[in-house]
Amino acid sequence: MFVIGERINGMFKAVKEAIINKDKKIIHEIALRQLEGGANALDVNVGPSTADAVGAMKWLVETIQEITDVTLVIDSPKVAVLEAGLSLCKKKAIINSTTAEKEKLDKILPLAQKYNAGIVGLTISEKGIPATASERVEIAANIIAQAMELGISPDDVYIDPVVLPVNVAQAQCPELLYALRDCKLICSPSPKTVVGLSNVSQGTKNRELINRTYLVMAQAYGLDAAIVDPTDKELMDAMITADLLLNKNIYCDSYLDAYRKSLSGK
Amino acid sequence: MFVIGERINGMFKAVKEAIINKDKKIIHEIALRQLEGGANALDVNVGPSTADAVGAMKWLVETIQEITDVTLVIDSPKVAVLEAGLSLCKKKAIINSTTAEKEKLDKILPLAQKYNAGIVGLTISEKGIPATASERVEIAANIIAQAMELGISPDDVYIDPVVLPVNVAQAQCPELLYALRDCKLICSPSPKTVVGLSNVSQGTKNRELINRTYLVMAQAYGLDAAIVDPTDKELMDAMITADLLLNKNIYCDSYLDAYRKSLSGK
Repeated sequence: MFVIGERINGMFKAVKEAIINKDKKIIHEIALRQLEGGANALDVNVGPSTADAVGAMKWLVETIQEITDVTLVIDSPKVAVLEAGLSLCKKKAIINSTTAEKEKLDKILPLAQKYNAGIVGLTISEKGIPATASERVEIAANIIAQAMELGISPDDVYIDPVVLPVNVAQAQCPELLYALRDCKLICSPSPKTVVGLSNVSQGTKNRELINRTYLVMAQAYGLDAAIVDPTDKELMDAMITADLLLNKNIYCDSYLDAYRKSLSGK
Repeated sequence: MFVIGERINGMFKAVKEAIINKDKKIIHEIALRQLEGGANALDVNVGPSTADAVGAMKWLVETIQEITDVTLVIDSPKVAVLEAGLSLCKKKAIINSTTAEKEKLDKILPLAQKYNAGIVGLTISEKGIPATASERVEIAANIIAQAMELGISPDDVYIDPVVLPVNVAQAQCPELLYALRDCKLICSPSPKTVVGLSNVSQGTKNRELINRTYLVMAQAYGLDAAIVDPTDKELMDAMITADLLLNKNIYCDSYLDAYRKSLSGK
């Protein structure tokens, strides 16, 4: 599993304040804590209420790259903010995200092409988020086809079938699993799949239990990547154990420690 | 999920001693603790080293039925011991188990027919436990065909694709998941599927974490029933949460309590 840390996001108070005060130490700490927890990449989002979003994204990307060369996932609804981040990434980045809406694809896919970046494609069309797995797969196929037109390889596309909260859209939870499975069949090489996990437990009382249970189920359905909180130790233990049971990590008695050590050696 | 409690088994010291001393209180306590934990049925196994296995099975079944009318899963490799238990069950029971070996099927399927019992069918043939999902499904189909010859309905057959320990047969762990999925496609009505969960973590250091992670994955692949320790609260929390995310329990903020209350009301 490719773990994308979700904690560098201006919607969190500490990050918002760090952006305002240009406090690098806070950002370094949050980055390191996520890497120590097992992140393979870091999502970077300036948050919804930043005055100078372009400047904030540049500052965040530069600040993070002072201490790590890990993959960055540049996360914004605004094209200018995405480009500001992408232009500074030292390593191949991932764009988070486009939908399948024509207006979005036309603006954001060329960015992926220009910066040779991966791209998260949400299965959202002009009609919104579909109710079934098969409609999600259809939308995913459209995104991939458009990406291929620009020379973007399908395995640089991370299809996100859009996790919805179990307390408001319970029937969607299994549909998402089937979409994860079926998206892998669209083409060869397959697209990657990704979820923004925490949304499943939005507004519920047992957030961590629901998150880790759903992550394990999604892994069983072939999930490639997840945007999660890697500082949630129980979540990461469950994730590592699921990969073990899918025969992706080799068993040893101390497989949890071994996994974490193998990361810190990277 | 249909939860079968595994704790009334003579391989556990307390149960072995209770059988020897005819100590009903111990058996009542173990039965009640499992029912309170969320068991829908109780496995009953006299263990490997009981002198009078037939007498011990009769005593266990009678003792348990003094305090509950829950479904009993009569568990023995010996036909005489199975029949001793089945003959006393007040409610439709489940036989645990037959393999697909001719000698076993010829002896044990008629018992299921005679006592109108469900039957656990292990995907083990004369050649042993196969390495792949598809061979397991083939063996399962043989068991079901033989059962149908005797008028036993496929949905009274619980196919058990044989969980193996992750530390010795890691590649088998995902194969079992695929077998669970594909066994449901053998016929209509589908057979049920069941696993003896704890075997996956035999000899490992993180038994409970491995057990609950694998259970959630198996649920994602459509598992109907599991032989587990229902007194393991974290396991049961994960199981209930997986059923929630598969849209099988209705969400409410206190869904864990609600599930347990709904059971105790039965």
